[in-house]
Amino acid sequence: MKQLRIGMIGYKFMGKAHSNAYRALPMFFPGALQPEMAVLCGRNGEAAREAADRLGWPEVATEWKEVVARDDIDLIDINAPSDTHKEIALAAAKAGKHIFCEKPLALSLQDAREMLAAAEAAGVTHMVGFNYRFSPAVKLAKKLVESGRLGQIYHFRAWFLQDWILDPEFPLVWRLQKDVAGSGSHGDLGAHLIDLAHYLAGDIREVIGMSETFIKERPLAENMTGLSAKSSKDAPKGPVTVDDATLFLARFENGALGSFEATRFAAGHRSTNAFEINGSLGSVKFDFERMNELEVYFTSDDEDVQGFRRVLATDPAHAYSEAWWPPGHTLGFEHTFTHEMLELTSAIREGRQPEPNFRDGVKCQAVLEAVERSVDERRWVEISEM
Amino acid sequence: MKQLRIGMIGYKFMGKAHSNAYRALPMFFPGALQPEMAVLCGRNGEAAREAADRLGWPEVATEWKEVVARDDIDLIDINAPSDTHKEIALAAAKAGKHIFCEKPLALSLQDAREMLAAAEAAGVTHMVGFNYRFSPAVKLAKKLVESGRLGQIYHFRAWFLQDWILDPEFPLVWRLQKDVAGSGSHGDLGAHLIDLAHYLAGDIREVIGMSETFIKERPLAENMTGLSAKSSKDAPKGPVTVDDATLFLARFENGALGSFEATRFAAGHRSTNAFEINGSLGSVKFDFERMNELEVYFTSDDEDVQGFRRVLATDPAHAYSEAWWPPGHTLGFEHTFTHEMLELTSAIREGRQPEPNFRDGVKCQAVLEAVERSVDERRWVEISEM
Amino acid sequence: MKQLRIGMIGYKFMGKAHSNAYRALPMFFPGALQPEMAVLCGRNGEAAREAADRLGWPEVATEWKEVVARDDIDLIDINAPSDTHKEIALAAAKAGKHIFCEKPLALSLQDAREMLAAAEAAGVTHMVGFNYRFSPAVKLAKKLVESGRLGQIYHFRAWFLQDWILDPEFPLVWRLQKDVAGSGSHGDLGAHLIDLAHYLAGDIREVIGMSETFIKERPLAENMTGLSAKSSKDAPKGPVTVDDATLFLARFENGALGSFEATRFAAGHRSTNAFEINGSLGSVKFDFERMNELEVYFTSDDEDVQGFRRVLATDPAHAYSEAWWPPGHTLGFEHTFTHEMLELTSAIREGRQPEPNFRDGVKCQAVLEAVERSVDERRWVEISEM
Amino acid sequence: MKQLRIGMIGYKFMGKAHSNAYRALPMFFPGALQPEMAVLCGRNGEAAREAADRLGWPEVATEWKEVVARDDIDLIDINAPSDTHKEIALAAAKAGKHIFCEKPLALSLQDAREMLAAAEAAGVTHMVGFNYRFSPAVKLAKKLVESGRLGQIYHFRAWFLQDWILDPEFPLVWRLQKDVAGSGSHGDLGAHLIDLAHYLAGDIREVIGMSETFIKERPLAENMTGLSAKSSKDAPKGPVTVDDATLFLARFENGALGSFEATRFAAGHRSTNAFEINGSLGSVKFDFERMNELEVYFTSDDEDVQGFRRVLATDPAHAYSEAWWPPGHTLGFEHTFTHEMLELTSAIREGRQPEPNFRDGVKCQAVLEAVERSVDERRWVEISEM
Repeated sequence: MKQLRIGMIGYKFMGKAHSNAYRALPMFFPGALQPEMAVLCGRNGEAAREAADRLGWPEVATEWKEVVARDDIDLIDINAPSDTHKEIALAAAKAGKHIFCEKPLALSLQDAREMLAAAEAAGVTHMVGFNYRFSPAVKLAKKLVESGRLGQIYHFRAWFLQDWILDPEFPLVWRLQKDVAGSGSHGDLGAHLIDLAHYLAGDIREVIGMSETFIKERPLAENMTGLSAKSSKDAPKGPVTVDDATLFLARFENGALGSFEATRFAAGHRSTNAFEINGSLGSVKFDFERMNELEVYFTSDDEDVQGFRRVLATDPAHAYSEAWWPPGHTLGFEHTFTHEMLELTSAIREGRQPEPNFRDGVKCQAVLEAVERSVDERRWVEISEM
Repeated sequence: MKQLRIGMIGYKFMGKAHSNAYRALPMFFPGALQPEMAVLCGRNGEAAREAADRLGWPEVATEWKEVVARDDIDLIDINAPSDTHKEIALAAAKAGKHIFCEKPLALSLQDAREMLAAAEAAGVTHMVGFNYRFSPAVKLAKKLVESGRLGQIYHFRAWFLQDWILDPEFPLVWRLQKDVAGSGSHGDLGAHLIDLAHYLAGDIREVIGMSETFIKERPLAENMTGLSAKSSKDAPKGPVTVDDATLFLARFENGALGSFEATRFAAGHRSTNAFEINGSLGSVKFDFERMNELEVYFTSDDEDVQGFRRVLATDPAHAYSEAWWPPGHTLGFEHTFTHEMLELTSAIREGRQPEPNFRDGVKCQAVLEAVERSVDERRWVEISEM
Repeated sequence: MKQLRIGMIGYKFMGKAHSNAYRALPMFFPGALQPEMAVLCGRNGEAAREAADRLGWPEVATEWKEVVARDDIDLIDINAPSDTHKEIALAAAKAGKHIFCEKPLALSLQDAREMLAAAEAAGVTHMVGFNYRFSPAVKLAKKLVESGRLGQIYHFRAWFLQDWILDPEFPLVWRLQKDVAGSGSHGDLGAHLIDLAHYLAGDIREVIGMSETFIKERPLAENMTGLSAKSSKDAPKGPVTVDDATLFLARFENGALGSFEATRFAAGHRSTNAFEINGSLGSVKFDFERMNELEVYFTSDDEDVQGFRRVLATDPAHAYSEAWWPPGHTLGFEHTFTHEMLELTSAIREGRQPEPNFRDGVKCQAVLEAVERSVDERRWVEISEM
Repeated sequence: MKQLRIGMIGYKFMGKAHSNAYRALPMFFPGALQPEMAVLCGRNGEAAREAADRLGWPEVATEWKEVVARDDIDLIDINAPSDTHKEIALAAAKAGKHIFCEKPLALSLQDAREMLAAAEAAGVTHMVGFNYRFSPAVKLAKKLVESGRLGQIYHFRAWFLQDWILDPEFPLVWRLQKDVAGSGSHGDLGAHLIDLAHYLAGDIREVIGMSETFIKERPLAENMTGLSAKSSKDAPKGPVTVDDATLFLARFENGALGSFEATRFAAGHRSTNAFEINGSLGSVKFDFERMNELEVYFTSDDEDVQGFRRVLATDPAHAYSEAWWPPGHTLGFEHTFTHEMLELTSAIREGRQPEPNFRDGVKCQAVLEAVERSVDERRWVEISEM
């Protein structure tokens, strides 16, 4: 296999990020198995055509089932709204296609499990889009944890803070509707934190959470792009059916204590996706707004010069850096997707499952739902219950 | 009353901080009712004498009951270990003395309530030592909240992170023994966070927590000063009976969501006492390691220059600053105590209760115990239960 | 003109950055006049072919004169080593091609002036590669200065600190040889600072500088990529003929005071390209290692909340942001080139000269040489002398 | 000698800082030779009495000559305006008193040399008030330099930025009048930078500078306290006769390159007294607004975790820390004076000259004047000329 022909379902925020990644791979990772952008699929043919022209897809389709059925497609990239993931993934697996699916994998744990089972039964490659794993600074954190340089993990705390719906007049976009989005800040932002926790600190044993919808009703949206949207004056209002903020405590299998917070009501935080890990030998801190940096502390440093180091993860010693620019020349948000797609095509070429794959998506979904149950039932919920 | 004659019980870390504050008042706040350092009391007469000479107390006593009984003493300053607070405070109230008591007010909510009742019955002034309220930057946060400049409060998150017992060989000092200290990181560090929450975000309705003692046994201590201590090689070990870390979630009466974490196992954090408040109109962030700074965000800033401002709270517009040094010339940890004692003597002169007083101490204790109950019973606990 | 056919001379660090920018334009700025990557030219045919395949150029040439002579090429992009710029640019102008030339424009002011004269005589578009102007945060600084929101400028201070040749065993690459590179840190790094000064603070009237070559001899290089290189053990040594560090003071025409420092000997600084501007109404600070941020201060802020704001220049109110990702999703080094090429093609379509163009290149060169003269003659040198 | 009886001339900003330091020594450094605050001297008897009461001086004098003449005074502390330093110091030396003199030592190098000669001839202890040396973080920087852990020094850059006279209506206080203050930002702020340079990077060989007075005339002042002052509406104006800002380049004897900037026109900087040192093995950064921190970088750190460490200089491994509070509990501006006075009394007890002493004051004055000459004559000036 010299190239991997891709059919992409969806073309908004994530479709743009994926297309950019596919286009970057040949230039920056020329040795990789290269994606071939074959067909872009969207329900609205005209909008899909416009997107395809812009994003670099030669062909357009309006029926995803036709795309899944095509013989000349190797991989289905699912980034349409969350309520479509399951049906498309099941069909893709059945058709023997490799699958990349954006997070959250599904609207429910049950659905996620079906998707995993289908992909495994079909023997196809499956991956889920937890892109933040692919920041070089996060890779450095992973390396420090895995190599034991932080020692035993005592604490993992993480928060994903945004403020894009702080204004009560911000309209009721699909991300605020449970039937389409599944959940609000919890599934959208908290899911990333949970995956990072799994990746960096291990499995979670039990959780207890707290949720709130601060603004119960919002004007109906007129149009929407990315995360921005507008409504007309005096637009009628509809109910917000997802959480504005969800926090939870967690106990990990290894005894570490976890604290998680996802909110869209943190004024001044455009997208603070941050975590800290404290171990017996050291600590690390990360904030995606300064994604090129990892703060690192070691207890073994000389007594008079102990302190958190601001490591700029752009040196040859850091993941991916040699593909890009000289030390000190930083990367941005989009590069996480390029690295993510590199993992996807590398795994396919090597005949292994990429990480994170549907198993990770299921694990994340289990924690998401356990938190929701803990909120509903006001009690600690063990993940093994789920 | 031209001066306030003080009898101080205890002379270690807090006794030193209080003495320094008493001595600073005449120089920096000459208009205030001035404390007169009259007698220092400690069980070990020799050590007390050494401390008195160093800290500036002309007289020494070894029996606190004698100090409380003296006619020439106006105020009892209690900073002996936590298990002594109640008995001394009750006696002081009975003797009609004003009382300053270090936090935590008592080992139990029941005890704290008795202390408050006794002080109120005696009609004396009572204050509890939540010194962090008295950082100029915290006063600024308070002003922004109270004046409505942050709008409705959605989130209060706070963490007090230390690492002084990270080493498993660090000895079993009194702060690690429940019968003396009452609790561990929760009562020592978490208590400060809870008081700041009450001060800045309002009353808490319900909580659920999680606790852990990572290191179950430690070598017995030989000697101890401040927070440092030593044990001999091959010292026998004893059980750690307090928590190493306690986290909890909270719901405030006003609907805000709270997240709290106190730990002594956060490598690299010598004393990170930090909080953030997110409101509908703005946010503030504080970290005691940079205590002169408050980060402030307003949603009303012009669209192209929105961002957290690093406000150095040393300008004439900031609390206490005119007493000290020109703008940009910073204060340190000890100044919080000077401001605290200024509030104490000001309240006495003005015939009002200072803030924070035993009511605040009781409120804090109620939350501390509610968290402990929530940990024991693995359920949400309402403060009104307590 | 629907597309702009490009012949690119050079394919190393800058050739890669330019190619990436050309490829990004259609996706992110679909409304722009689009570049068509036509032919890549390099003296080593094999290496050029490899680069062309990787970077996306369909055709390869080894003789730049042939490329310049082709009728089907609209623009020559010059990013070969600095000593080739002049000859290529003169030929391109003569052939009526638009020209993009990397900085420094030439090895001497005299050469730079010839290049400008030739381009102007030929009536072609000309641009010089001061890419840092195109950081959104720098654009914000420009907007604040131009709109008067910072008031009268009193101070401009800037420093470009690197450490890639700190090791005395780092080999003698072409950037350390005067005949190829023209100068060292001064022309490589200082040139960017000077251009930013011109852009943000205005014309410079006079300068005085200081230079040093700390390591006088280095092992000859064996091979080199980007800024990294290797030499064999016991390689013979050759003389370093450029400056390791150059500092200078400047007085601007508007009375502002300037301070500049460029060095490759600042341990810990991979690429700190930073400046600060102090005006009568406010200040701004920028550091390219955190390129998405601009710190902004206004004297008009309320007295109790004055402080530098950390503005993340990713909001809709900031330049270019709507083309990319939602607020808080950051850009990296390479995006400055995309914006630079957008300015290039926009200017061509609009029939104007882009900014910065050869006039800016000449102005920068005049200051560079004035500084060198001031170093040689140990005296203040007026730019008007040059 | 059990105590050191002090006569202090002056009682404003510095008099307050010194008094506080004298009072702090017995509590925090009980083992030291202790100062005895004997008599405070000021020309205005009433104001001096008020200050003495507040600052803790039992006795007041209005004629400094009488104080100098008293047999019961061991040390004269000179912190009156700069134009009085010389006469008082000469008289104190003649009377055989130890001398502490605030910086700048004198209004001219000639005067400073006379003062040093007089003190040496009299065999008295002499010290000059460069208090910033006594920040624990600066002591750490010194230790790292002296022990060779930073290697050979290549760069020393420093800036002292304030903004208290940014408003053109700020009145013409004595610090803006050459006959009283000697110079403006240069002598007031730059002097501190020069002393830190001498302390940390060694002797300076030659300098070239640039000065500016941005606001040439200001309203006459009515009253003044510390750095703040007021003038009445329509107050008449007088000429500002000192520099608002002075910058200079320097070459050190050891080959290092220096860059210095002192200004009172840096909006947003209340008192940014900052420096950075780059050596062959590492770097340090300091900013007095965060005076408890030193940023430290080592080239020897493992390749994947290289970065500036934020060291909080409050650990037992740091200077003075054991006298104060537990790790993480910070100090402020005033503590530098306590440490300074500790050095003073320690030196007297040990029969050695303290550091910095008048020799350092003379060295600093030589550089200050060399810079002034370089500004006047627009040329490089060698310190050996002076």
